[in-house]
Amino acid sequence: VTNHTIAPLYLDYLKTVFKGTQCDVVLLDDGEEYKNEESLFLIYDSLLKNKHHRDTTIVALGGGVIGDIAGFAASTYQRGVQFIQIPTTLLAQIDASVGGKTAINHPLGKNMIGSFYQPKAVVVDLNTLHTLPEREFRAGLAEMVKYALLEGKDFYIKVQTALANGLSADSTELPSLIAQCCQIKANYVEEDEKDIGKRALLNLGHTIGHALEAYSGYKTWLHGEAVAIGLNCIGILSCKLGLLEEKIQHEIKQMLINAGLPYQIPKSIDLNQLWNLMKLDKKILNNQLRFVVIEKPGVCYLNNAISEEFFKEALVTAIGGE
Amino acid sequence: VTNHTIAPLYLDYLKTVFKGTQCDVVLLDDGEEYKNEESLFLIYDSLLKNKHHRDTTIVALGGGVIGDIAGFAASTYQRGVQFIQIPTTLLAQIDASVGGKTAINHPLGKNMIGSFYQPKAVVVDLNTLHTLPEREFRAGLAEMVKYALLEGKDFYIKVQTALANGLSADSTELPSLIAQCCQIKANYVEEDEKDIGKRALLNLGHTIGHALEAYSGYKTWLHGEAVAIGLNCIGILSCKLGLLEEKIQHEIKQMLINAGLPYQIPKSIDLNQLWNLMKLDKKILNNQLRFVVIEKPGVCYLNNAISEEFFKEALVTAIGGE
Repeated sequence: VTNHTIAPLYLDYLKTVFKGTQCDVVLLDDGEEYKNEESLFLIYDSLLKNKHHRDTTIVALGGGVIGDIAGFAASTYQRGVQFIQIPTTLLAQIDASVGGKTAINHPLGKNMIGSFYQPKAVVVDLNTLHTLPEREFRAGLAEMVKYALLEGKDFYIKVQTALANGLSADSTELPSLIAQCCQIKANYVEEDEKDIGKRALLNLGHTIGHALEAYSGYKTWLHGEAVAIGLNCIGILSCKLGLLEEKIQHEIKQMLINAGLPYQIPKSIDLNQLWNLMKLDKKILNNQLRFVVIEKPGVCYLNNAISEEFFKEALVTAIGGE
Repeated sequence: VTNHTIAPLYLDYLKTVFKGTQCDVVLLDDGEEYKNEESLFLIYDSLLKNKHHRDTTIVALGGGVIGDIAGFAASTYQRGVQFIQIPTTLLAQIDASVGGKTAINHPLGKNMIGSFYQPKAVVVDLNTLHTLPEREFRAGLAEMVKYALLEGKDFYIKVQTALANGLSADSTELPSLIAQCCQIKANYVEEDEKDIGKRALLNLGHTIGHALEAYSGYKTWLHGEAVAIGLNCIGILSCKLGLLEEKIQHEIKQMLINAGLPYQIPKSIDLNQLWNLMKLDKKILNNQLRFVVIEKPGVCYLNNAISEEFFKEALVTAIGGE
């Protein structure tokens, strides 16, 4: 399973690996807005038409969208077939491909339909980053900033420094940064695979990010860009709650700017509507919206003290641009 | 989640249990042909529109179709919410509600999209059988015959005798027969939840049954009726393979006749086409179709010695009626 952007670059090469094996290709359109019911059923249709049985393996070649949807298809085709991830974007390599979350979007909310399903293998080839558009590369850096905030200590400094110096696909620090992000995520997932505890912290910046994506019909921002705005907002909210030093809040914003990422909520966004979209968040318990807040790098936790009024008031300073 | 047949009978009563809790109802059309993508997305849509979060519980009130589809929705909505089964048909009570298999059908094959997902509880109220149409009751007996063949010994005799005497919703033997079927199934599932070994034997009669259902667009037979034909066919095939005594093969046919079930493949069915549909079976390994065959009651196993030619030749004697 791959898309029209990745196929011309890597599909022929990958197919040489499967020589002598029945290898059918499902080509999806590229973009978060295609992580939907229609694409999912294209995969099922192809599997059935080509007579794939329970002993087949689905291979996801692409970014997070391809990985999520192919993983969901693998977890549900004939009640589960084997699955291998070959992530080709920075975001998928450091975040989406690790941990076994699969999903498609619903018009009313991101990742609302999905499963927990671990791949048999995740194959990360850093060379694929050389064909990745710069905008996509930067989007991946948003998740790296998230891991820096969750982990704190040396890793926070390391990411902050790398971003200040300008991080690209050729940077010598990149391989170890990617490996560390995977390790941090794996630690969370090992402790809480089914997302009933600690794993919720990986949603730092995502409650607002997901709502922004749904607001715009998954068309305005790449996932990482929406997360970047979410991270800046959470910095501001944490600061206004009296939890986070203003100095660190500015550092977070600066890391996002250095990464070349958006960080402001455009003026055109209606905060009431955004709040309503957040009320569909999967982390909701007893109808109470919970945000992951930041006390300092390395100390993040769930907080249910953010009311609709506080949210809208505090985020006035996060609004800017179109 | 229930259907238009069951709702007028039991929905109001069930709702009294949930007084004081948000309780939204999804009403589906009744029948195997509605165990599809459209019905599944009606459930997701309702969950999202009514703002159900990960702490919700989906309750299936109905037969196997409702249980399968509601269970699949529960396993995939927000990557899994709680699920309770209240089976109202004999077939669902003795078979479909036990074991955690969920699914929807695809136009190219039955149960091709699904998951393994255990309910938190299965609530069997035998009183619901008093409103069950006789045809549906008889369809449930097909699975009981299957359990008799799998278990053998006393249970085979008990089912055979009960069917010879005429089994109805009022029969005094019924509660213990239902309980024993559930126990037999539970034993298989406990040993092999994910269906990689022993659980395959529960597919006795189902390879042919599923193909018949797909052949007719899920419209001609109830699932149990298609399984009844499948059981008779497997009796004939096992006999022709030299595995099963002819005496027992006739006993199997007689049990199905006593249960008031169809047992012949209608003349209108093209066996070539039926074979092609079976080649989509989930039990296929290395493109080899495997049938569960019967050596004697209590001794059933997977067998891959049935070729297309043998199948079509042997089943000439299974053809009859329209």
